[in-house]
Parts: sequence; C-alpha cells; structure tokens
Amino acid sequence: MSASEAVTDALRELHARFAGVDEGRQADYIPELTRSDPDDFGLALVSMDGHAYSAGAADTPFTLQSVSKPFVYALALAALGLDEVSRWVGAEPSGEAFNAISLEPGTGRPANAMVNAGAIVTTALVPDSREEPAFGRILSCLSRFAGRKLDVDEDVHGSEAATGDRNRALAYLIRSTGSLPVDPVQAVDTYFRQCAVRATAVDLAVMAATLAYGGVNPVTGERVVSPEVAAQVLAVMATCGMYDSSGDWLLRVGLPAKSGVSGGLLAAGPARFGLAAYSPLLDASGTSVRGRAALGALSERLGLHLMRNPALPGSTVTLVTTADVLPSAPTGRLARALHERVGVVAAQGALDFTAAERVLYALDESGSEDGGPVVLDLREVTGADSDALVLLHAGLSRLAREGRRAAVVDPGDRLGPPDLLRERTGQDLPRFGSREEAAEQCARVLAGPG
Amino acid sequence: MSASEAVTDALRELHARFAGVDEGRQADYIPELTRSDPDDFGLALVSMDGHAYSAGAADTPFTLQSVSKPFVYALALAALGLDEVSRWVGAEPSGEAFNAISLEPGTGRPANAMVNAGAIVTTALVPDSREEPAFGRILSCLSRFAGRKLDVDEDVHGSEAATGDRNRALAYLIRSTGSLPVDPVQAVDTYFRQCAVRATAVDLAVMAATLAYGGVNPVTGERVVSPEVAAQVLAVMATCGMYDSSGDWLLRVGLPAKSGVSGGLLAAGPARFGLAAYSPLLDASGTSVRGRAALGALSERLGLHLMRNPALPGSTVTLVTTADVLPSAPTGRLARALHERVGVVAAQGALDFTAAERVLYALDESGSEDGGPVVLDLREVTGADSDALVLLHAGLSRLAREGRRAAVVDPGDRLGPPDLLRERTGQDLPRFGSREEAAEQCARVLAGPG
Amino acid sequence: MSASEAVTDALRELHARFAGVDEGRQADYIPELTRSDPDDFGLALVSMDGHAYSAGAADTPFTLQSVSKPFVYALALAALGLDEVSRWVGAEPSGEAFNAISLEPGTGRPANAMVNAGAIVTTALVPDSREEPAFGRILSCLSRFAGRKLDVDEDVHGSEAATGDRNRALAYLIRSTGSLPVDPVQAVDTYFRQCAVRATAVDLAVMAATLAYGGVNPVTGERVVSPEVAAQVLAVMATCGMYDSSGDWLLRVGLPAKSGVSGGLLAAGPARFGLAAYSPLLDASGTSVRGRAALGALSERLGLHLMRNPALPGSTVTLVTTADVLPSAPTGRLARALHERVGVVAAQGALDFTAAERVLYALDESGSEDGGPVVLDLREVTGADSDALVLLHAGLSRLAREGRRAAVVDPGDRLGPPDLLRERTGQDLPRFGSREEAAEQCARVLAGPG
Amino acid sequence: MSASEAVTDALRELHARFAGVDEGRQADYIPELTRSDPDDFGLALVSMDGHAYSAGAADTPFTLQSVSKPFVYALALAALGLDEVSRWVGAEPSGEAFNAISLEPGTGRPANAMVNAGAIVTTALVPDSREEPAFGRILSCLSRFAGRKLDVDEDVHGSEAATGDRNRALAYLIRSTGSLPVDPVQAVDTYFRQCAVRATAVDLAVMAATLAYGGVNPVTGERVVSPEVAAQVLAVMATCGMYDSSGDWLLRVGLPAKSGVSGGLLAAGPARFGLAAYSPLLDASGTSVRGRAALGALSERLGLHLMRNPALPGSTVTLVTTADVLPSAPTGRLARALHERVGVVAAQGALDFTAAERVLYALDESGSEDGGPVVLDLREVTGADSDALVLLHAGLSRLAREGRRAAVVDPGDRLGPPDLLRERTGQDLPRFGSREEAAEQCARVLAGPG
Repeated sequence: MSASEAVTDALRELHARFAGVDEGRQADYIPELTRSDPDDFGLALVSMDGHAYSAGAADTPFTLQSVSKPFVYALALAALGLDEVSRWVGAEPSGEAFNAISLEPGTGRPANAMVNAGAIVTTALVPDSREEPAFGRILSCLSRFAGRKLDVDEDVHGSEAATGDRNRALAYLIRSTGSLPVDPVQAVDTYFRQCAVRATAVDLAVMAATLAYGGVNPVTGERVVSPEVAAQVLAVMATCGMYDSSGDWLLRVGLPAKSGVSGGLLAAGPARFGLAAYSPLLDASGTSVRGRAALGALSERLGLHLMRNPALPGSTVTLVTTADVLPSAPTGRLARALHERVGVVAAQGALDFTAAERVLYALDESGSEDGGPVVLDLREVTGADSDALVLLHAGLSRLAREGRRAAVVDPGDRLGPPDLLRERTGQDLPRFGSREEAAEQCARVLAGPG
Repeated sequence: MSASEAVTDALRELHARFAGVDEGRQADYIPELTRSDPDDFGLALVSMDGHAYSAGAADTPFTLQSVSKPFVYALALAALGLDEVSRWVGAEPSGEAFNAISLEPGTGRPANAMVNAGAIVTTALVPDSREEPAFGRILSCLSRFAGRKLDVDEDVHGSEAATGDRNRALAYLIRSTGSLPVDPVQAVDTYFRQCAVRATAVDLAVMAATLAYGGVNPVTGERVVSPEVAAQVLAVMATCGMYDSSGDWLLRVGLPAKSGVSGGLLAAGPARFGLAAYSPLLDASGTSVRGRAALGALSERLGLHLMRNPALPGSTVTLVTTADVLPSAPTGRLARALHERVGVVAAQGALDFTAAERVLYALDESGSEDGGPVVLDLREVTGADSDALVLLHAGLSRLAREGRRAAVVDPGDRLGPPDLLRERTGQDLPRFGSREEAAEQCARVLAGPG
Repeated sequence: MSASEAVTDALRELHARFAGVDEGRQADYIPELTRSDPDDFGLALVSMDGHAYSAGAADTPFTLQSVSKPFVYALALAALGLDEVSRWVGAEPSGEAFNAISLEPGTGRPANAMVNAGAIVTTALVPDSREEPAFGRILSCLSRFAGRKLDVDEDVHGSEAATGDRNRALAYLIRSTGSLPVDPVQAVDTYFRQCAVRATAVDLAVMAATLAYGGVNPVTGERVVSPEVAAQVLAVMATCGMYDSSGDWLLRVGLPAKSGVSGGLLAAGPARFGLAAYSPLLDASGTSVRGRAALGALSERLGLHLMRNPALPGSTVTLVTTADVLPSAPTGRLARALHERVGVVAAQGALDFTAAERVLYALDESGSEDGGPVVLDLREVTGADSDALVLLHAGLSRLAREGRRAAVVDPGDRLGPPDLLRERTGQDLPRFGSREEAAEQCARVLAGPG
Repeated sequence: MSASEAVTDALRELHARFAGVDEGRQADYIPELTRSDPDDFGLALVSMDGHAYSAGAADTPFTLQSVSKPFVYALALAALGLDEVSRWVGAEPSGEAFNAISLEPGTGRPANAMVNAGAIVTTALVPDSREEPAFGRILSCLSRFAGRKLDVDEDVHGSEAATGDRNRALAYLIRSTGSLPVDPVQAVDTYFRQCAVRATAVDLAVMAATLAYGGVNPVTGERVVSPEVAAQVLAVMATCGMYDSSGDWLLRVGLPAKSGVSGGLLAAGPARFGLAAYSPLLDASGTSVRGRAALGALSERLGLHLMRNPALPGSTVTLVTTADVLPSAPTGRLARALHERVGVVAAQGALDFTAAERVLYALDESGSEDGGPVVLDLREVTGADSDALVLLHAGLSRLAREGRRAAVVDPGDRLGPPDLLRERTGQDLPRFGSREEAAEQCARVLAGPG
C-alpha cells in the first residue's frame, strides 16, 4: 500500500480534526456502558471493492445497540417480504423520540423500525427456524453483514435486561393492539441480546458497505440480502435513522445512517462506500458527537450527498459527424453520401434508462433532414441494464417501422444476443465490428447501385 | 422524432394503465377547485438534456398549491442561505398533517417548509426588493423554474383568501413566537397568491428537472439556483414532501417529491429526470391518486429509486497486464522488464472520489512485488471532479515519496494543468501520449543503461 | 365594629404568614405588568350578607386578565343559555396550558371557557345589543358583579393589543373550524379590553361572593345572573379554573377559583363566602404564589372544602316520645293512648330533599306497631324548598292512602298554603298551633268516643 | 314503611322514564361481560342515616371494574397519606381516554387515580401486611365500604388477565420511570382482581354514601376511612371520575362520580346521599347510558348539584330587639335601660365559621350607639364546630377588650366548657339559663345602683 494510503490520510485528518471535541456524555442508564473509554474515537471506510480504511480506535469493540435495528429489519424483510413486514411496522418518521410510547392510530403499528417499538416488532417477526432459534438467526445475519462471526457482551445484555421495563411496556402495548404471536417479555429479551452484540467501527463500515453494495458484502463477496431489501432498508434509514434529527441529517449530510447509544454510528453511500464512527460521547438525542461531526465532514469530503447533482454522468453519448469518421475530404459519390447523409451516434460507459434516452434522442437528431441512415456505435459501452435495453430495443424498432436504416457497431453484444434483438426490434439489424465499416455500408446503400 | 418516441410510448403505456383508476375525490374546500375535470390525467418527463415527453392532459393548466412550496423554499435559501432560513423553519418530518397547528417546542419554528406553517414562513422570508415586491420575485422564480412566464388564477386566489382563516391563524401563531418582521395577514395573502399560480404537468416536470439538474433549467439552460440549494430542497422533499406518507413514498418510490391539492405531483430523480403528473382525484392525504400510482410505476420502470444500487458504475478502472500492452511475446532485456515489472492501470469514464480510490488501490496492486514502475492511463477518462483530483494527487505524491516511479498517459490533462500537478505531487510526473510510449519509457529506466 | 373584627384578625394573621413569601416573578410579557409593586399583597373576604373584610393591599387596583373569564362566560350563558354556549365552547379540563393552541377534535370547540381559546369564543358570543356595543355590556356586567363601576386600564390594553398575536392566531383558528360570525381581530380586541378592566382584591371578593350567593351581589342586593348560571360558572371554575393544576387545587383547597397573570386570584365558597387575593408574584403556571397559599389556608381555616363532610346538617329531625310532650305520668285512657300510640316527629331548621327524606323516615318509625297516629311538628322549621315540599306532600299522601292518621303543627304554613297541601296530599290534614293540641287530638281519636 | 315509600316512588318514576332508552352497547372486550342482560337496569339511593331505597335490578350482581378505583385510592391514601400517594400518582384531569398510555412529563406519574395507569399504581401502593396480602386488604376495604362481604367473579378475572396486555404495558411503563418496588405483572393481576369484585347497585350506593358521609358507612356505622381521605377521594372523582366528560358531568350533574365498563355508576352527594345505577349498555366513553341519564335526573330532582346555592342556610342568626324580649311597654329605669340599650342576638341551628361570622356581625350591629351590653342567646343552637368556636371566642374576647359587656344564654354549653371559654376570651362571661334573666342582668348593670 502506498498510493491508497492517501485515503487513510484523509480519514486521519478528519480524526485529528474531531478528536479534540469533548462535548457530550456517555450513556449511563446501565453501568456497563460507562466502562467505555470516553476518549475512544475510531473512523472506518469500506469501498464497494471491499477496501477498508480506518483511523483511530476503529478496532475497539462496543455493543451495537440501535445500530442493530436496520440489519434485523433487513432480516425480517428478507424472510417475510415488505408487504408482510409492513402489516406490523410502518415506515414513517414519527417526529418523536426513539423510545416514544406511541403507535399509529388505527393500525396500532409502530411508526417505523428505527424506533424501539418498531425494532421490538421487527425482532419478534424473525421466527425460530427448524435449524436454529430466532436469536441464532439474528446473530448469524449480523455476522454475515459484518463479514465475521460476532458475539454477545453478556454483561451488557444482563444489565439491559434488568432495566428494560420501558421496552417491556412497549412490547405489551404492541401485543395489546393485535395478534402478534409472540411473548412480549421474550421478544424484548431477544431484542436486548441483539443490542448487546459486539462489533467495531470497521465492522460497522462493512455492514454499511453491504447495504450500499446492494446487499452483497464487498469484503467477503457473500450476498446477505437482495438488492430490493438493501434499498428498502436504506430508504427507511434515510427518513428515520437519526430519530428526530433525521430530516436535518439528510439535508446536511445526505446519507442513510443509524446511530446507537454505545457510540456507534454508520452511514451508507449507495454504490460508493460504507462509513462508520465510534465515540461514546453522545449528544442530547443519543448520537455520538464526534461521530456525527466526522461522518458529516466525510460525506462532504467524499461528495456523497445523495441529492448533490453528480456533474459527471456515468455515460456519454456523442453525436458524431462523418467528418470525424473519415477525416480526409470525401470524394466521389459514396464519400459524399457518407459525408452528408449518414449519422453516427457513439455511446460510452454504462447505459441505464437515463443514458438510453440520450442515445435515442441523439439517433433522432442525427442524419440529414430526410432521415438518412444512422450508425450506433456501442464499442465503448461497458454495460447496459435491462431498463436501458428495453428502451433501446423499442427505439430501434420505432426507427425500423418508420423505414429509417440503422446499423450497429457492437462487437461486445451490448444490445443483447442477436435473437433477443431480432425479437424486440422486429428486424435483423446489421452489425459491424468497426464504425468505418458500418458507415461505409450505410453510405453504400444510400448511394445506391452504381 | 421517432426513436425517442419509445420514451413517449412508455409514458403512454403508464397513462393507459392508470387512467382507469377513478378512486379519490377532488378537493372541494373552495368551489373553484371543483371546476377541474376529474377525468383529466397528464404525465410528463423531462431529461437532463431538456428533452420533454408527455402523455394525456399534460398541457392542462391547474394551480400549483403546495407544489409551490419547495420552489419558494429554494428562493428563500438562495436569498438568505441555509443557516438563516433554518433559524425560521426546520427540516424535520413532523409526523403530522399538512395543516397541523404546531411549532417546534423551544424554537417556535414550523417543523419544515413543506407543511403550511413552514411554507408561510418561507414565503414571508422572501423580502421585497428595490426592483420588485416579494410576490413579483416569487412569480419570477417559479417562472424561471418552469422555463416560461407563469400567471395567477385570480379566481382561485380570491376563493382561498376568503376561506383562509386556518392559515391566518398559523401566521399569527408564528409571529407570536418570534420577531418575524412581516404582517401575518399579508404573508398569508402572498402565500395564497403563490398557491394560485397556474402551471401544467409539463411545467411541473421542468421544475422538477431543474432541481434534479443541480439548479439549472435543462430546457432554457438558465441557472435558477445553486447546486447546493437544489440539493437542500431535494433533501427536504425526500423526508417531508409527501406529508405523513413521506417515509413510505421514499421506501417504495425512492424519489424526492411534492404534491398539491389541485392534483399536481412532481418528483425529481437527481441527475436523471424531472417527473410530473396531474389528476385532480385525491386520496385521503390530499395527493393525486393516479399521480401517486403513475409516478411510482415510472420510478420503478426507469430504475430511479435513489437507494437502488446502480449496478453499473460511472467509471471503470482496469489493471492491465503488459501482455495486453505488447501482445507479442517479449524478447530481450527491455521486453522482459516491461513484461515482468511495469504495471499499467487504465481508467475510463468519469472520476469522482469513489473512482479515484479505485485508481489508487489499483496502482498499489499493480506491478511486481518490489514495487516496479507503474503507468496510469487516463486517455479514456471523460472528466474528474475536484474531490477525485485531490485524492489522485495525494496518492501520486505518496508513491513518489516512497520512491516508486509512475508515468501518466494523459493527453487530455485530466489530472489538471502540469503546474497544479507539480505543486500537489511534488514532482514532475512524466506524461505521455500513448500507453506504449509510457510503458516503454518505464521499462527502459528499469532495464538500466545498456 | 369590634366582635367581627375577629374575622379581620384571621385575615391579617394569614396575610402576615404569607407576606414573607417572595418566590415567583411578575408577568413581563408586556411592560405595563411589571410596573406593579411585587410586594403588594391583599386579601379580602365577603360574606353572603355582604360583609366585607380585608387585609393588606386589598384596595390596590390591577387588571383582571383571566379573572374576567368566568364572568364573561356568565354573561354569555345568561344571554344565550347553556345549550347554545356549549355549541361553541366545551366544559372539559384540557390537561393543557392556558394558551394551548388546540380545539376539540370533531367539533372544533375550545376545551373550556377558562383557557384563552374558550374565553375568546365566549367574548365573541356576547353580541352588540341595540343599546350598547358588546364591550359596553361586558364592562357593565363585570361592574354589576363587583358592585361598582369598573374601568379599563388603557395602557395595559394598548400593550396587550400590540403583542397579542398568539390570541389572534387562536381567533382565526376558531373561525376556521366553524361559522362564528365575528371578525377574529375584533373579537380578540374586545377580549383584550375585558382583560384590561381594573379592579381590587375587594372587588374580586365581591365578584366571587356574587357567584357563591347564587348570582345575587350580596353587597348591592342586585341579581346579576340566575342561580343556574352562577352554578354553571362555578362548576366550570371547579374543573378548569386553575388551568393544569385545577385537579390538585380542588383536591387540596376544595373551591372553584380563577387566577389572572396580573396577580389576582378569587375563589368562591357556595353559600358561604367570596374570597380573593392579590399579589403579582406568579408561579410557573401563572398563578399568584402568595394568593394560592393564602386562599388555600383560608379555605382550610374556614372549613370551606366542598367535599369536606359538613358534620352539622342544616336541619334536625327528632322522633319525640310522648314522654317529652307530656312530662307528667299519664293517667286515664286518653293519657295512655297518647303515651303508647301517638308518635311525634319534630323537625328543625331548613328542609331540603335530604331533610324531607329524614322526616318521612321518622314518620314511618314513629308510633306503635299497629300504625297509630302521628304528629308532625314543623314549628321550628325555618323554610322548605320545593324539592322538600314535593317529597313531604307525597309522603303524607302515602300515609293517608294507607289509613294512618297524621296531624301537623305548622303555624307558619311551612308545608305551603292549605289549598296546595290538599291538592297534593288528597286530604285535609288537621293543622294545629301547638304540639300538645295536636297530640291530644290524635289521642282523642285513638281513644275513641267515651 | 309508607311515608318514605314516596322516596322509592321517586326512584321508580326515574327508572320508568329511562328504562326505555336502549342506546349504547355492552362492553365486549372479554366475552364474560357480554353475558350480562342488556335490559337490566337498577337504581339505588342511600341516605346519611343508612336508609336504602331502590328500583329495578338493584340487587343484580356485576363486576366493579373501574368503580373500584376511588375506593382503592382511598385505601392507599389511608395507608400512606396524601403526600406519599401524590409522589406516585397525580390528581389532574388528563383530557385523555381512560386507557391512555401517558405519564406526566418530568415526574412520570400517571395523571390521576381514575385512569388505568393511575389505578394500577394505586393498587400497587397497597402493601401486603403481616396479616394479609394486598388483595386481601383491598377486598376487605371494598367490603367495608359496601357493608357486606364481597367476592370475586373468577371467570371475569380470568378473562381480563388473558387480554390485559395494554394494562401490563402501562405497568411496565410506570415502573420504568421510577422505583415503584412491585412486580408489574403482579400489580396488574391484583388490579384485575379488584376489577372483578362483584357488587350490586345497592352496594354501590352504600359505597358512595360512605364517601358522602365523611368515611363512615351509614348502614353499618363503621368508620372506613377518615373524613380527610373521603374528601380527597370525592375531589378527585369530581374532576377526573367521568374520564373525558368529567367537566361536563360536573357542570350539568354537579356530583363526584365514577363509572365502570360493566355498567355500574355511582355518585356521591356530600352529607346528602349515595346514588348508584346499573345498566350494561354503554356510551362511547364507556359509561352506562341509562345510568348517566338517571343519576343526572336524580341529582336534579334531589337538588344535589354541589354548586347550586343552598337557599336555606343551616343556621339563622337573629338580631332581637328588646321589644321582643319584654313585650309589654317598659316602665321604670330598668325597663327603659333594657329597652334602649341592651342588644340581643339569637342564633339557631348548627354553627360553622360562616354562621359564627354572622353572629359576630350581629353582635356589632346590636345595641345602642354607645356600645351598650349585649346578650347572646344560644339556646337554639344545635352545635358548633371548632372553626366556629375559635371565631366566637375571638369575637367575644374583642368585645371584652373594648369594654363592652356581654352575657350569654347557653344552658347547653355550646360555647364550650367554662374553662376553655375563660381561657380563650380572657374573662368570665356571665352565663344565664334564659334570655330574660340575661337581659335583666345587663339592664341592671346599665341602670347602675339605684
């Protein structure tokens, strides 16, 4: 390592900038939480390639507490699907504190899975399976997200269990509104165990990266949940993850995130990074003071704000004049035809629906007014998703129906296998290996026999 | 047009699918709103290139109502900045109805600018300027977002003004908690005027596209607000725009959005599209029934969910073996050096921090174990943002400090002008026009004299 | 005065006891209220005979503020009746602060007339009459309650009007929920004027005494409102008069009461006393600290707690043996009959339903087992209300229907005029001037001819 | 019985009037409650002498449910005192439903002992004693209030226990806010048992009468709680007993009351009556429809509204001229002295502070301008409470200090034993057996030796 050490340098710089902040105080509702070192401060960053960077106390273990909530929600979604889970827990920010004793009027559902009430329901929704009891499944799931086997801090669990009356109240209240087929006291105990699972800042960054990477752990390569579940969890984190400052966090930091009272905080930049911080000094809303500041600065530094316009699209579409294709001055009939009437559209990079629309629009713009032939050059395209393919096929089909000739330069079969292409466009599109061949062939047709 | 007609086809298909839905009812708190045709249903889509597509009654005018809120919020942010605006109005979802009479305990601020209380404050924050009164500025701003001169439906304005006691109550309540230096009745009147501004579904899609395009109207090319303001507005729309179903909307549809009681609904896919629908039949929460369904389906169809992992990154980074560079089997000392010890890293597409990290990591991975020279080939890079440049420079600087040779193939100066590069990396990086030249030069150095 | 000076002594003693308390602070939301002398402290007590006692600064004028609310409520009830007034304002304690912005779900009514929202509605319900505008009627009504012409502190009124946005918000909010046919800003202005009416602690005690005396001012003898209205107002004061400490006040002090932010506090002991205090130092809930303490002690000292069992009933009913009637040993047939078989029931004091039931029960208990005659001696009865008369008549009618002889000693016609009595009981009850005559006559009938 | 049958007649008439009402519906949250006969309707009335009257199904047993709350609150107050009980449960109407999940901010106390949360706390405050467990004490207390041994409906208890999650939630929530040293599940179980205690409408009327009679059961004569506790319970019933219609009930009916979901309803007229009704058809707030109507009418019929001005005071004070004392025209010096200068004040009935003030005021008014002697005739006084005695003694002492002669006619020692009187007034007041003697003696002194 040496060039990529520059990433670590960036983390170290942020670590140094915020290590001096000593506002906030440790959670103290159970004595075990006060045993953490208030000076501890760790930062971690994990890329979609599974590269991990860290600074400070990023390997110090602490208990997940509320950081566990989105991951157990993911497990419930994976097991039961969004519709079934939504029968039991909503997805609305509540405007209330994390431990609010309130359920949705009418349905009796907790507002969302990030407040305690919703998290207890979520935990209760994970059934025992034949192979292992519910908590076993939860611990195993959390471990897969983290990419290593996690364990439980039994002291913390014991203490939480001893002081957990408010959560037991929530559990009974929830059961009183419906037929949740679980024992409230047992559900709360399982919930306390998941809160007492131990992890480090690096673990948290891997867990966040797994959500950001569409449910695949980028370090181990294991698919933990489906892309749909990962997106659902991130959406709920975006509106509800930071309790009653979720709106402000999304406004200023722009990332789905989740904090816990032991000082952990994670955030996910979809398709970018998993981020995490650990520092036990908490603000009034129970979020790590240094963690909040550092992840906010990191999002800014890395340009991760979800709503910030990515100035550089992932693809380019170029309308090419034939002057570019045949730099020498054209002579003869064929050359003139080529020069005047054949359009060339070149695309580059990854194609999604957004890019595909650009391609089609460029095809329409290309060529002379009487609708001469067009060449679509896809050699530099690195891939196309299914939304893009459907639209491209439909557009090429439209062209054909209107009698406009098209040829594609697609040696990599970016438009899909010839059979699919024929079925979708209703024609055998001429395919070529180079732009020049394609243009020439088009010009030849234009110029006519002779 | 013909290929891109396929996009219109997609809209038409959705239009047909949801036109049959006749649930919901028109707003009727003022008689003017019941004069709209309940069967009207329009859809519109505007791309970042300013291409507009539509289906159905997309040119039927209606009053903006609450759809005006994010745009006047944008105007206030542009005029005063986020910090000043945040003194007067929060950014938290309130978990309450749009017309809730409640202010934040302690500060007396409305929860956010998407509920009536917050919108009235926002409107009040727009000062009269020397050139024109506040409402003139608001109308002008809305018109710039829409790309054409909008006007006021005076009948609707008159009716709203006649029945607006609840909003007047809000205005007095807000003034009672602080020193907002405006007359409450006048602020409410301006607010009613902005609600009565008339637009079409196509206008709404352009307005949304302007936010999605970082504040630049993609049709007119005019910058309406800064990228920062656009991102701030989108973030607040994401958590608060759909009132008390904002969380569910972000979970299922995944886009910042805003609805109004006259039947308008818009959504923004950052860097992708502006979307809009118009249909006056509303659900219980005051959102267009068909609009909600159609934009939801459109987001699904176009793959716009913010949290869905974009499978195809906007850039690629390739670690190239010299076998690729010099396809024929190497002979001689120079060729062996080249073959064994020179690494080549090729990047393609747009580079942001995320991509830059990949480049640096690939540089570290490249080359032989003893840290031979490396070639960074940037010919296919289409651009690099400032975050990427800072990181690349830092990484190259690290390499240099550790004595590892590097050469760049960067005919387009993607790494910035030579002076900046020298300053940032502390060296004169050898630059070449082709990969082969660079590799050969590196090999030459390796092989040593002779 | 000298004997009754002992009452003043009791007040002085309480005054001295609480004058040293200097907790609390003056209201300061308008500068005029801070001009009061924080050391001022007055106590006043007015009896149902109109005797007034006071100690300290009981003649210092201050503005009524919220103390005006129950009296304007009384005016509205008198003008419109409870049912009509109840359409606009409820009578439930709200569990909220006095200036809460909340209306009853469903009806849109303010919770009660003691909170600002309800008081504004109450004021708005007082219509202009032909003779005088609404505020004239209110000032006149307040003056009749106080027994002297009150006036408005125009400085205070001006200041309140300048800072009254919260109340204007309430007024608009109320109008937005229904068709209250008043201009909100004007209603609030009238409300502010009534709050700025000036009175002293003695005035307040007279006002309270008027409610306690069933609506008749005990000093002037003028009937201000009906007994029904007075009772209705007292009931609402009992549950809502002390804002969110109303329950605790009724529990500990046991009297309907009302406080105002200028330091006034009054309480009413129905049929006993009007009490008042003035001291501008307020507790957190806006009630005079010394006032609360002193009136609490006064209620305790005077035994006024509404729920404290009055150990001494207002009437006595005695079952008299004939031994008491004819003290000497009876001889002869007549005397024996008298001794053995004639029952005598004597009642004393004021008769209501409660006492009447006792009388009837005693009649049943009296006499020998075979149901001999009974004498009802009402000479010492000082009065009987209509409920008592109806029951006594019904009981005597029952006796007659079962053939038991009864005679009444009722020279004062406490049972009502003979015609009414005959109609109600269906018989001509023998009436006598003395118990002896009646008993002897009964005995004579018993003994039979001979 | 025959005369007092007129009271039963009044009940029967009300019973007939409301028996036809068949609105409302039975509670059905547990099947056992639906087994009651919806047509059942009983009324009962018990006087302070223990006379019981009833009509309809007044002997049909049902479970107390929430009717038990005030009596267990009484038990807790008796055991711990108001201050200690108030540490755990408030006395404020909450403006919320009976089963609201909310505790007082800051203290964590339930709002009052009439809502479920407060009742569970109240029950939990009753400790096991050495002799018997908590529930034994509760059952024994309820039985003493009712005047007979009550028992538990085990079926109802079992059903409630099976469906009581909401109450268990409350119990855990309460324990989570403080150190209530009880097991929540056990506290709720005890609470369910108290709710399942079985009683009749007559029992309820006796229970209410016991509170109305200052804590003494008027049927058995047993003191169940102190007068202070009885008054405290009645005060809380007055503001909180009818849940969120408590204010309206006090306004219209004017009595402390408590209802239960099995159809029981009781109300107490202090020093007057205990009232009760039973009918299982409930309104939306869980109160018996017929019960509410019938007890409202009964209060009206019996003139029991607490705030209605009792027109007839329990005592009379008469300023007697000597013309009344010596009807024949006075002759001679003595007679003239008597006629002109001796005042006579006669009091009758029960004396409390209110009456004592009248006596003192009359003493001041009596006599000639130069402050001649005065005779206070107390022969017709039936009693005087301690507040009255203190004031009378103080007044007589004042008179003496100012040199005005007074003589009392007090053969019954209503002013207390001579020693106490001497100590309090600082003199030996001359006491006489008749008014004439006293007046003559005073005149004699006036006339001087002669």
